[in-house]
Amino acid sequence: MELKIAAYAVYDLPAELTAILQIEVARLPSQEILSETLRFTPDLETEAFEDLFGNRNRRFEAPPGRLEIAYDARVRLGEPPRPAVDTPEVPLSSIPPDVVMLTLPSRYCESDRLYRVAWDLFGEVPPGAGRVQLICDWIRSHVAYEYGQTTSSTSAFDMVTERIGVCRDFSHLAIAFCRALNTPARYAAGYCLELDPPDFHAYFQAYLAPPRGVNDVPGWWYSFDATHERLRRGLVNTSIGRDAVDTSMLTLFGTAQLVEQTVTVAEIAPDAT
Amino acid sequence: MELKIAAYAVYDLPAELTAILQIEVARLPSQEILSETLRFTPDLETEAFEDLFGNRNRRFEAPPGRLEIAYDARVRLGEPPRPAVDTPEVPLSSIPPDVVMLTLPSRYCESDRLYRVAWDLFGEVPPGAGRVQLICDWIRSHVAYEYGQTTSSTSAFDMVTERIGVCRDFSHLAIAFCRALNTPARYAAGYCLELDPPDFHAYFQAYLAPPRGVNDVPGWWYSFDATHERLRRGLVNTSIGRDAVDTSMLTLFGTAQLVEQTVTVAEIAPDAT
Amino acid sequence: MELKIAAYAVYDLPAELTAILQIEVARLPSQEILSETLRFTPDLETEAFEDLFGNRNRRFEAPPGRLEIAYDARVRLGEPPRPAVDTPEVPLSSIPPDVVMLTLPSRYCESDRLYRVAWDLFGEVPPGAGRVQLICDWIRSHVAYEYGQTTSSTSAFDMVTERIGVCRDFSHLAIAFCRALNTPARYAAGYCLELDPPDFHAYFQAYLAPPRGVNDVPGWWYSFDATHERLRRGLVNTSIGRDAVDTSMLTLFGTAQLVEQTVTVAEIAPDAT
Amino acid sequence: MELKIAAYAVYDLPAELTAILQIEVARLPSQEILSETLRFTPDLETEAFEDLFGNRNRRFEAPPGRLEIAYDARVRLGEPPRPAVDTPEVPLSSIPPDVVMLTLPSRYCESDRLYRVAWDLFGEVPPGAGRVQLICDWIRSHVAYEYGQTTSSTSAFDMVTERIGVCRDFSHLAIAFCRALNTPARYAAGYCLELDPPDFHAYFQAYLAPPRGVNDVPGWWYSFDATHERLRRGLVNTSIGRDAVDTSMLTLFGTAQLVEQTVTVAEIAPDAT
Repeated sequence: MELKIAAYAVYDLPAELTAILQIEVARLPSQEILSETLRFTPDLETEAFEDLFGNRNRRFEAPPGRLEIAYDARVRLGEPPRPAVDTPEVPLSSIPPDVVMLTLPSRYCESDRLYRVAWDLFGEVPPGAGRVQLICDWIRSHVAYEYGQTTSSTSAFDMVTERIGVCRDFSHLAIAFCRALNTPARYAAGYCLELDPPDFHAYFQAYLAPPRGVNDVPGWWYSFDATHERLRRGLVNTSIGRDAVDTSMLTLFGTAQLVEQTVTVAEIAPDAT
Repeated sequence: MELKIAAYAVYDLPAELTAILQIEVARLPSQEILSETLRFTPDLETEAFEDLFGNRNRRFEAPPGRLEIAYDARVRLGEPPRPAVDTPEVPLSSIPPDVVMLTLPSRYCESDRLYRVAWDLFGEVPPGAGRVQLICDWIRSHVAYEYGQTTSSTSAFDMVTERIGVCRDFSHLAIAFCRALNTPARYAAGYCLELDPPDFHAYFQAYLAPPRGVNDVPGWWYSFDATHERLRRGLVNTSIGRDAVDTSMLTLFGTAQLVEQTVTVAEIAPDAT
Repeated sequence: MELKIAAYAVYDLPAELTAILQIEVARLPSQEILSETLRFTPDLETEAFEDLFGNRNRRFEAPPGRLEIAYDARVRLGEPPRPAVDTPEVPLSSIPPDVVMLTLPSRYCESDRLYRVAWDLFGEVPPGAGRVQLICDWIRSHVAYEYGQTTSSTSAFDMVTERIGVCRDFSHLAIAFCRALNTPARYAAGYCLELDPPDFHAYFQAYLAPPRGVNDVPGWWYSFDATHERLRRGLVNTSIGRDAVDTSMLTLFGTAQLVEQTVTVAEIAPDAT
Repeated sequence: MELKIAAYAVYDLPAELTAILQIEVARLPSQEILSETLRFTPDLETEAFEDLFGNRNRRFEAPPGRLEIAYDARVRLGEPPRPAVDTPEVPLSSIPPDVVMLTLPSRYCESDRLYRVAWDLFGEVPPGAGRVQLICDWIRSHVAYEYGQTTSSTSAFDMVTERIGVCRDFSHLAIAFCRALNTPARYAAGYCLELDPPDFHAYFQAYLAPPRGVNDVPGWWYSFDATHERLRRGLVNTSIGRDAVDTSMLTLFGTAQLVEQTVTVAEIAPDAT
C-alpha cells in the first residue's frame, strides 16, 4: 500500500521558544519513505536527532509570532508481522535490557497501581498474544469513546474507573494492564488511513515471541489497537515510547497557541503511482 | 442478645485542644442501652449534642498531657428488620429530603466518578436489596482485606483499582457504587462482637422500601456489610453519615498522639444477666 | 437594590427521569422576594422541599424529550452584615452542632489533605475575618481564572497545584484552606449582577463572631469571594452546602443534554420600581 | 575518602520469580571500586546488563523459599565537581538527545501538572545552579521529614500539597519542579555515610553548564540533595533514572516478602586501609 500523508499545523508564539517536533514517518523496514518534505514558515534551522527510543526528533528555536509547520510524505507500507493467537510471551529472563524499562510504570501508565485489577481480570488467561488481544477487547467493550471527556492529565489509573476517553487513553490503559501482568508494552503514535476522517492515531505494541522464522532476536514488538476491533489499515508509525510523554508531536519548552491543525492520509491508487 | 462493651483510649496532647467524641451507643429502637458510663481522666466537662444525622456527639476541651477516655456500656440488641432479597428501592420521587443528600458524592465516596463502572458492573441487575447484596458480594470477592495498605486518604475511587483495604474502604466502595446507581446509601460505624477479636467495625446502610407492615414511612435504612458474607452478629451502631468523615470516633481540632486503644465486646450469657 | 433575575434552561431528555432543581432565590432576611415565577414546559408537577441546609429544592419527574425551565424573580436586596477585619473566630467549643460539619472535609474540599499547606501559608496569621480575606487574596493572586481548564471532578486538592480554574474551583480551594485551619466554611451559589455579563456565581461563607449588636447567636455566616478582590454587587443567594455537590442547580438522576442556558440579572432603576 | 559498604537483604518467595537487582556501586570516574562481592543464598546464576541509563543491573531467577542477597564493596570516592552558585543552565537547544527525556514528566514527577506552581514559586529566580539549590531549600523548609506518611504511590503532585515524606518524596518533588522550569533533572539512588545511621539515600541531579575547564561536553549532571541543607558526605551512587521507578534496588516480577534488610556504610580510617 502506498500512502500520501500531509500534516499541517499553525501555532502562535507569544515569545521565542525551543521546541521538538516528532511528526516524521519512522524509518522502519515495513515503512519505505518514498519522499518527504518538512517546511517551516518562517524558515528555521532545525537539528535532527534520535532519542533513546530511536524516534526521529527535530529540534528548533522559533521566533515569536506565527509558526507554520508543513510535513508531506509518500510512504510504501509493508505488512509488519502479526502475532498468532498463541504467540507466547518472552520469558522475563530473556528480554533485552532496553525492553526491561517497558515493563515498568510510567507517567500515564501506573501499572504498579493496576496490579490487582489486572490480575483479577486477566490473571487466569494464558499469557501471550491472545491475552493482549483480550485486554484490547475488554477495553473496547467497557470503555466509551468520546472526545472532550479526558484531559492531558488523564492516566490509566483514571481510566479504570472513569471508562471514557480517546485513543490515547485507551492505549494507556492497555499498556498499564500489560505491564501489570509483566508483559512489556509501549505506546505508539502515527498517522492512520482507516479512520473517519484519517488522522493521527495512538495505539500500542507488546513484546512477544518473534515471528516464525525469525531466530536472531529474543522477541518482537507487535502492534495492537485498543480502540478498534483490529489494527487499522494504513497505520504509519512516527514514534514509540513509554507513553504519550515520549511521543508528543510537538514538545514545547514554553507556551504557544495551536491555531490550526490538519492531517490528511490518502491511499494512492496503483495506477496513480 | 445482651452485650458488654468497653472502649478505652489514651492520647498524648502536646497542647490544649477541642475535640468531639462519637463512641457512645446510638439510641435506636433496636439498641436498648441498659447502662453506660463515660469517664475522662483528667476529669473534663463535656457537652453532648446531636449532629444533623442524629449522632451522639460529645465535645470537650482537653488540657495538654495525657488524656484517657473510658466508655463502658451494656446493651440489649433487638433484631433490626432485614430486607427480603426482592425488597425494592424507593422511587427517587418519594425519598425524604434528608435522604436526598445520601444519593450524592462525598469525600470518600466519589460516586460521580464511579458512574460508568457501576452501571457496567451492576446496571443489568434489577434494583433493590438483591442488587445491594450483589455489590457487597462483588466487593468481597474482588477486594483483598489487608491492614496497612490504605491510608486515611484512600477513597472509593482508589479502591476500584487498588482493590485492597479494610472495612472502612470496603464500605466506601459499596456506598459509592450504590449512589452511582441512584440508591441512597450511608456509612455506619459501631462495635462488633463477631470479629476476631471483637472491635470497631465499619459497614453501611441502603435506603429501600420499608419492611412488611411498616406503612408510615416511605423507606427504611437496612444495614449491609461489604466486608463479610453477611451482617455480623452483635453489631452495635454508634454513628452514621455521608462517609467516614461524619463518624470519626474522635475528631481532633489540633494534633494528638494515640498512645493506646482497646475495644472489647462480649456477649453476656443469659444466666449471667 | 432591586434586581430582576431570569434563568432559562433547555434540556433534552433521552428518557424519563427524576431531577431536583435549586435555582430559586433563597428566603433570607437580606433577600426580599418581591415576585417570582417558575414555569416548566411541558407543564410538570413539582414538589418543593427544604434540604438539611435549608435550601429550596424542587423535585420533579420529567418525560422524555425537550424540557424547558424558566425562572423569573424580582428581589430587593438588603445589606447583609460585613465582618470587620478584626472580627474573630468563634471558639470551636461554641460553634453550634450544624456548623461542626462544615469544619470537616467534603467531596471537593479535602481539607484533611491540605492541613500542612494551609498552616504553612496562613498559620502565622491571627485567625478571624482578616485571615479569611487573606486566603481569598492569596488565591486570587496565585490562581489563574480560565474557563475550560477544570472539569466537574476538579477539587481543592488539584487546585493547590494546578492553579487554574473558575469561581467554583476558587471557592473550593478557599473553603478547604479555611477548614484545614479549623474555620467553618461553606459553599454558596447564586446569581450575580456585577459580572460581565451577569451570571451564576460561586462564592463561600465563613462562620465568625456575630456582627456588633447581635448577641443571641454564637456566630454568623459572612460571605467572601475568592475570585474577585471584594464581594460582588448584586449577589443573590440560591443555596449553600458543603461544596458544589449540595448546590447543584439541577441534580439529575439520569442523563440529559443541556441544550441552552441563559441567565440575566439586571438592576431596576429607582424610578422604574 | 574510602568507604566500606555492606548491604544485606532476606526475602521470602512464595513462588519462583524473575527479579532485577540494582545495588552495585556505579562505575563512575569519581567512584573507584576497590573490591566488591555479591553473594546469593541459595547460589544463583545472574546476568549482568546495563540499562538505557547505564545502570548496573543484575537479573536472576530465584526458586521459592528464602533468598539472601549480600553485597559488600570497598570504594574510593573522589570529589565530583560541584557547581558554582552562578553555574548557568545549558540552553535547551544544546542539551544532548539522552538528556531531553529528563525534561519530561514521569511516573512520580508529574512536571506537566506542576507547571504553574513551579513558575509561581521560582519563575522570578535566574535559572542555573542557584535556582536548583533554592528549590532544595524551599522543599526542606516547607516539607516535613517523617517515615510512614507516604506510600510507594506518593508522587510529586501529592507532595506539593501534603508536604510530608522521606528522601524519595523530597527528590521527586525537586525533580518535578526542575522539569516544570525546563531544567533537566534525574533521580539518583545510592549509599550514604552521613546519615544517622548510614543508609540508602535518594537524591537527584540537575543538568547544568559543565565545570570550568571541561569543554568537550555541553553540560554536566551535578548532584543535589533536597532533604538536607547540603550534599551528604560519603554519597555513593548506584543508579540514576527518570524517577524511583528506574532505580529500584530490587524489581520483582512477582511477589516476595522482605524479611530483613540492613545497610552499613563506614569510613575506613586512613591508617586502616
